[in-house]
Amino acid sequence: MASIIKYESKPILDHPIFIEALPGIGNVGKVAGDFLADAIKATKFATIYSENFPPQVMLDEQCVIKMACNELWFAKDVNEKDIIFLRGDFQGSTPEGQFELSKEVMDILLEYDVSKIITLGGYGTGAMVDTPRVLGAVSNTTVRTYFEDLGVIFSPNDPQAGIVGASGILLGLGKVYGIDSICLMGETSGYFVDHKSAMAILNILMKVIGVDLDTKDLREKSEQIDALTAKVKEFETQSSHEELNYIG
Amino acid sequence: MASIIKYESKPILDHPIFIEALPGIGNVGKVAGDFLADAIKATKFATIYSENFPPQVMLDEQCVIKMACNELWFAKDVNEKDIIFLRGDFQGSTPEGQFELSKEVMDILLEYDVSKIITLGGYGTGAMVDTPRVLGAVSNTTVRTYFEDLGVIFSPNDPQAGIVGASGILLGLGKVYGIDSICLMGETSGYFVDHKSAMAILNILMKVIGVDLDTKDLREKSEQIDALTAKVKEFETQSSHEELNYIG
Amino acid sequence: MASIIKYESKPILDHPIFIEALPGIGNVGKVAGDFLADAIKATKFATIYSENFPPQVMLDEQCVIKMACNELWFAKDVNEKDIIFLRGDFQGSTPEGQFELSKEVMDILLEYDVSKIITLGGYGTGAMVDTPRVLGAVSNTTVRTYFEDLGVIFSPNDPQAGIVGASGILLGLGKVYGIDSICLMGETSGYFVDHKSAMAILNILMKVIGVDLDTKDLREKSEQIDALTAKVKEFETQSSHEELNYIG
Amino acid sequence: MASIIKYESKPILDHPIFIEALPGIGNVGKVAGDFLADAIKATKFATIYSENFPPQVMLDEQCVIKMACNELWFAKDVNEKDIIFLRGDFQGSTPEGQFELSKEVMDILLEYDVSKIITLGGYGTGAMVDTPRVLGAVSNTTVRTYFEDLGVIFSPNDPQAGIVGASGILLGLGKVYGIDSICLMGETSGYFVDHKSAMAILNILMKVIGVDLDTKDLREKSEQIDALTAKVKEFETQSSHEELNYIG
Repeated sequence: MASIIKYESKPILDHPIFIEALPGIGNVGKVAGDFLADAIKATKFATIYSENFPPQVMLDEQCVIKMACNELWFAKDVNEKDIIFLRGDFQGSTPEGQFELSKEVMDILLEYDVSKIITLGGYGTGAMVDTPRVLGAVSNTTVRTYFEDLGVIFSPNDPQAGIVGASGILLGLGKVYGIDSICLMGETSGYFVDHKSAMAILNILMKVIGVDLDTKDLREKSEQIDALTAKVKEFETQSSHEELNYIG
Repeated sequence: MASIIKYESKPILDHPIFIEALPGIGNVGKVAGDFLADAIKATKFATIYSENFPPQVMLDEQCVIKMACNELWFAKDVNEKDIIFLRGDFQGSTPEGQFELSKEVMDILLEYDVSKIITLGGYGTGAMVDTPRVLGAVSNTTVRTYFEDLGVIFSPNDPQAGIVGASGILLGLGKVYGIDSICLMGETSGYFVDHKSAMAILNILMKVIGVDLDTKDLREKSEQIDALTAKVKEFETQSSHEELNYIG
Repeated sequence: MASIIKYESKPILDHPIFIEALPGIGNVGKVAGDFLADAIKATKFATIYSENFPPQVMLDEQCVIKMACNELWFAKDVNEKDIIFLRGDFQGSTPEGQFELSKEVMDILLEYDVSKIITLGGYGTGAMVDTPRVLGAVSNTTVRTYFEDLGVIFSPNDPQAGIVGASGILLGLGKVYGIDSICLMGETSGYFVDHKSAMAILNILMKVIGVDLDTKDLREKSEQIDALTAKVKEFETQSSHEELNYIG
Repeated sequence: MASIIKYESKPILDHPIFIEALPGIGNVGKVAGDFLADAIKATKFATIYSENFPPQVMLDEQCVIKMACNELWFAKDVNEKDIIFLRGDFQGSTPEGQFELSKEVMDILLEYDVSKIITLGGYGTGAMVDTPRVLGAVSNTTVRTYFEDLGVIFSPNDPQAGIVGASGILLGLGKVYGIDSICLMGETSGYFVDHKSAMAILNILMKVIGVDLDTKDLREKSEQIDALTAKVKEFETQSSHEELNYIG
């Protein structure tokens, strides 16, 4: 069965850049994409409801509900660029569902004749990261060169397990349909929502669009991550000292 | 594959109220909805068979079978109001199936131009409840105000896990299609079929429709719940005394 | 996705009786139905291949393969009656798949304007059965009276768990489409292929059609079941004696 | 939902032979098929993307991605024969998905009016194999005679568990659509990628097409398998001697 796609408007966009910002490892992509969308005052224009999301509604403070969904937002004329965002609290519940949802989004992107697909995600390291790098995976080497110049790191065959979920499939479908596509992955321990890694991705995105946003809020949260990282490292150092003492 | 929807009649209804009464926690919604439908002499007009129900038939005393299904019933001119009920012994077997079935029901409700969607359910507390409250979750604040006046409690962000299954999705789809919608949840331990909690919901429903039904049967069963609750509490008190004695 | 239905012929049949003989508990229905189909020289006219069967081919002695499938066979003018059989080595792999396959078969049966649906199965008792009875579950009380006269037992609400799989759904769909339908269940331990229970079902089927077939082969296999039953009982008696001796 | 099938070209082929070379036991079929396709300089003409593959992209050394897919390749006029290959790194993720994908491939093969279907696989023995035989399973006895003459072994009812996955379904669908079809299974321990077993299959395929390819690369890898087999056997002999000594 097809999803229910509800349009609130059908904006006229000029070869928009598409940015996918769904939840994932460390919620890096969601934090970065949501921050950017809000900062450039993006507007919701379509909502996707589907059997492929959990059969569930969530309540707000007023007990007004919201059904599990994904949303498309747009921003026009940001430094002469149009942008579409894919936002939401859920990815598809099953592998088949993830593919179906991505294909439905892709069909919309093809209508809008998107010029670039940028999917966002975290690159889980399993250890605290001082200065998260942004790794990339691309649909072709031209895109690679472009993003290398912006500071994105390309590490051969890495991540070795490939990229799964919406970030992977939308990147893959981008290549299938001949659209310049990249997945930006911020390094993260993956243990918590990682605003610092999101900040690293946001820095790349700002360069792509050519805007300089006030990122104070995100930087403050990044600094909390720094404090957290410092504490974890201190604890680890102490632990290993104590162990040494104990052995000694 | 689509379900098989068999119509016995196509009643002409005037902006009916829709009430969902499928089984769930403590069977609160089913008991309340079934009682109301029977009390106002509702008539079955359609049956939904689906791959999304268990592939199963049940036997009655005559060994006449009934296939797993959901049913639509209607009542006309109840205090000048028309009502549609969704009744049955099953919810969809899978998350995807629950969404599909709710969407199929919703398509019928849209044809009937329903004025209000009321889904019924239990709010599991995991403990015996003396005086079950009825909590609400709504599609918008206007509906909230209306039901607040009828005694429904709105507790911010509660239930925190959201609402799942048919009660959740039909409420969610109600909002998607711009229909005033509410989920009424009767507090219940969830340990048994809870007629007392159902009685609490029924009281709200009678106010909505503006009828005063003979609820003797349900009240008698409610009193059995009272007796049961008293016994459980007595037992718990004894147990804790004995424990104290033992410790002492 | 729809199944692949390959017709070898499209026989002209006059309100045929439909008999479902797929594998199940003790393979009672399959043994009885296959025996009858072969005895009255039924002919295969259609094969159903589907994603809902295991993705598998089996090999014969010549290493010639056969893909997992269900088959429709027919016999004409058997005591002036036409008959359609559903035969095969598989039921659908999933609950959804079982419903889909049964619905596809039902669509064919509706085209053929079947007069009666008879599904066959085993009624698992979990204990050795001396003289297996045939229990019935029906679409309406008229069918019940007809089969009661033929010796079928109707035990209220029994089986309590209902009837699942093809036997259940085709019976259920029969009722949905207003066709006189029955499920015949031969009592069986369920521990092995039970030819004796199948013989009991066959006796009913021969009365329905009004034929007296040479059932020598099946009776011989039934007698082997008798011998097996006797041995199991002897063993059980000895065991309990020994136990008594031991205790004594 | 249907898969996405992207054509790079639509070659004109004359009753091509179809060879399926997807991964499986010991990767025997994939190694043999990929070697043959490369050796006769086959060209990719279509790619199949599907919800039935893992929702995943893999990265190459340049961090350029490739989405999980299956591919169709063709070669023309190889000893006056045209050939289509099915290649890839994945089989369908679920039983239903495997059937769906095979049916989609079959629909393409029917358009191309294929003359022969050859599916490739491993026959797992669970023990080291000195001289792997190639076993066959066929759609009819004419195909059997043809391949028997080429050295393929037909062992009654073997493999007893039948053939599953793409090799089984494409063989089965070949029979359904009346196309001469065979599954060639190279004996293999199944413990590692078995180039020697693949070599055995390749020898049959070269006879079918009537070509004599330079198989040096594959033979060298085969010899490594020989060395490995010898070592395993030596180890097993030692182990059993030691055991004897120990016991003695």
